[in-house]
Amino acid sequence: MDINRLAHDAKRASRRLAGAPSTTKNEALAEMADALERRMGEILQENAEDVADGRRKGLSSAELDRLLLDETRVRAMAESLRLIIALPDPVGEVVEGWRTPEGLEIQKKRVPFGVIAVIYEARPNVTVDAAALCLKTGNSVILRGGGDAYHSNRLLADVITGAVLDAGLPGEAIQFVASRERDVLLDLLQLVGVVDLVIPRGGEELKRFVVDNSRVPVVYAAGGNCHVYVDRAADLRQALAVTVNAKVQHPGACNSAETLLVHRAVAAEFVPRVVHELLERKVKLHVDPATLELLGDIAARVGTATDREYATEFLALEMAVKVVESLDEALEHIERFGTGHSEAIVTRDLEAARRFTDEVDAAAVYVNASTRFTEGGVFGMGAEIGVSTQKLHARGPLALKELTSTKYVVLGSGHVR
Amino acid sequence: MDINRLAHDAKRASRRLAGAPSTTKNEALAEMADALERRMGEILQENAEDVADGRRKGLSSAELDRLLLDETRVRAMAESLRLIIALPDPVGEVVEGWRTPEGLEIQKKRVPFGVIAVIYEARPNVTVDAAALCLKTGNSVILRGGGDAYHSNRLLADVITGAVLDAGLPGEAIQFVASRERDVLLDLLQLVGVVDLVIPRGGEELKRFVVDNSRVPVVYAAGGNCHVYVDRAADLRQALAVTVNAKVQHPGACNSAETLLVHRAVAAEFVPRVVHELLERKVKLHVDPATLELLGDIAARVGTATDREYATEFLALEMAVKVVESLDEALEHIERFGTGHSEAIVTRDLEAARRFTDEVDAAAVYVNASTRFTEGGVFGMGAEIGVSTQKLHARGPLALKELTSTKYVVLGSGHVR
Repeated sequence: MDINRLAHDAKRASRRLAGAPSTTKNEALAEMADALERRMGEILQENAEDVADGRRKGLSSAELDRLLLDETRVRAMAESLRLIIALPDPVGEVVEGWRTPEGLEIQKKRVPFGVIAVIYEARPNVTVDAAALCLKTGNSVILRGGGDAYHSNRLLADVITGAVLDAGLPGEAIQFVASRERDVLLDLLQLVGVVDLVIPRGGEELKRFVVDNSRVPVVYAAGGNCHVYVDRAADLRQALAVTVNAKVQHPGACNSAETLLVHRAVAAEFVPRVVHELLERKVKLHVDPATLELLGDIAARVGTATDREYATEFLALEMAVKVVESLDEALEHIERFGTGHSEAIVTRDLEAARRFTDEVDAAAVYVNASTRFTEGGVFGMGAEIGVSTQKLHARGPLALKELTSTKYVVLGSGHVR
Repeated sequence: MDINRLAHDAKRASRRLAGAPSTTKNEALAEMADALERRMGEILQENAEDVADGRRKGLSSAELDRLLLDETRVRAMAESLRLIIALPDPVGEVVEGWRTPEGLEIQKKRVPFGVIAVIYEARPNVTVDAAALCLKTGNSVILRGGGDAYHSNRLLADVITGAVLDAGLPGEAIQFVASRERDVLLDLLQLVGVVDLVIPRGGEELKRFVVDNSRVPVVYAAGGNCHVYVDRAADLRQALAVTVNAKVQHPGACNSAETLLVHRAVAAEFVPRVVHELLERKVKLHVDPATLELLGDIAARVGTATDREYATEFLALEMAVKVVESLDEALEHIERFGTGHSEAIVTRDLEAARRFTDEVDAAAVYVNASTRFTEGGVFGMGAEIGVSTQKLHARGPLALKELTSTKYVVLGSGHVR
């Protein structure tokens, strides 16, 4: 396959898309949603092939579940498209504007990137999500999904392209990379100036491969080794609620907490309560010696925490616990093991809250709230393509605005220097 | 040298710098400026060594000029520091803030990146500029200058570090990479998570090397193959002034124009005038056949333009000229040969202005003004470290704000999902 030509086709289409009115882009999204429901039978059939292939290949039940589409999931995809329609179109927003002393009128305007390549893994819904977010922001998209979902993705890309064409927009704006070859991906990652942005969505290995090999700028959603720190001045009822929620509400999410840090001054009171509660919720615990000492009868039901556990993003009902001597020790622990995603302090002390929010280097820092809130939808930014833990361009939820660039438009009347 | 350790030292220092008040950072900048003037003799002496080495190595006179420091240039460096002091500190700015329906208070706050590596070439003033801009924005800086300016840069780094220490800030915030080895640079470019941002400042070759080899995110100032398009509805007096200014006012700048495009409808009237004027200003011209036909007597004084000339960033008193049949042809030419820096249209026609500003994909698009205005200072953004022509994070002048990232600070009262 000629990835270079495919990318250039996407680029050409992006020029038409950039000027497309919101109403037209929304028509395409509406038609996409309708077509998903209309072509349900085909979609489930292609997906069944992927699932059957997956069984033959010996995928785990978790992997098969990620791959699986059923009527409910396809309808959810259609519904998520309808939510995107309702979001404001960021393209054309005047971010800033001013007049220079010489009388030049300067506007900084929000514009599409051009071509965004999304590299992802098993979940077929990413095909629809990524295409919709890129279309809404006037970007062409190059979709390169995982091999396991090949049949599903190919059909979904066809559904999407049809909807784009129906709305009178260029079908080349949606490019599906059919090839599974690493070489094709490597070539794609070299296309500086044609592809404007690459977004890997998936595990750490995929992310690393893309970062290591891309000459095109990359924005990625990295893992979240998130912490809840219960300060000496914490409201312990809040601390209990926040800890349990941050761990158990959706343990597979990157914003769920993996380690609980408890200040020594409240440990004797708080640790037995929280450990009891977490064990009740079937959370497997890894604790330091100081925590263990406080557990009495239930000490036998927990394991030992080492640096390995503190460094692990469990993404499961599993958590490390550590008693710290001070806020400083908590900050040092988070600095050493945190991945800069979401970090929470529970405290009633203003200075502790201020130091924590100032000194913790993360995309989102919480005071008296669960780390689970880091999400475009919850933040009020609408649908997101992931949460960025890097600092360039966008940190935190990658929603519609984050899929745009800007351009300076300058109006003069014959101005020269 | 241990680049890994040096970078980690910078990272540690960046944590202290991040919380430093503006007044302290400004004290360091003021002391830097004073120290430059106080240690003038030493600086000129070290620079004389570099210049002598350069002569021995057979550097061109342009290269030697870039390298040379004299009293005027050192005083200019000190003055530029004093201008940076006067600029507002972007760190701590609340970019946005809102309350979610659940009652979470969200603030998006401007924070330093952490560690910025600046990779540059001959001009020793970049050492001072880059360090000052990074310090003002609370970032540690790793300075890796060109080998030709080694002695000058080493002393300037020493002057800067002294000033930082005098203000009570960590000297490790300024790191000077003494080694000229490519391997050391390559190692530096792999330090993801320690170095937060790399900025190459220099020629295309340096930029390519950094982009090709860096795993750390890169923001760069690329070359500018800029155009002036004189539309059929142009005010020809404005067109003449804009064209001449865009070419001759500072031909070595990346925002100077390299190609003039003239609409057929005004070519007979405009081309002889502008060519005459440019020749008067000693601009060497490369023209297409249609332009040549209009030149009469002066036809003998111009050369021929081919794709090679259209693709060249002359950075000198040299320009290509082409007659186009339509706005569309101008847009196509710019799309094919432009580098996305600064592009200008001269027109009185609203629809032509609108199409040009919408469809030209560049950092800055001008209507009836010279391309020469693309600069942080002129835009009112203050000192800049370059003009970005890429679309991620910052497009256009890289001033203080562009040297920062953001962080979400979220305040709850025991909020859980």
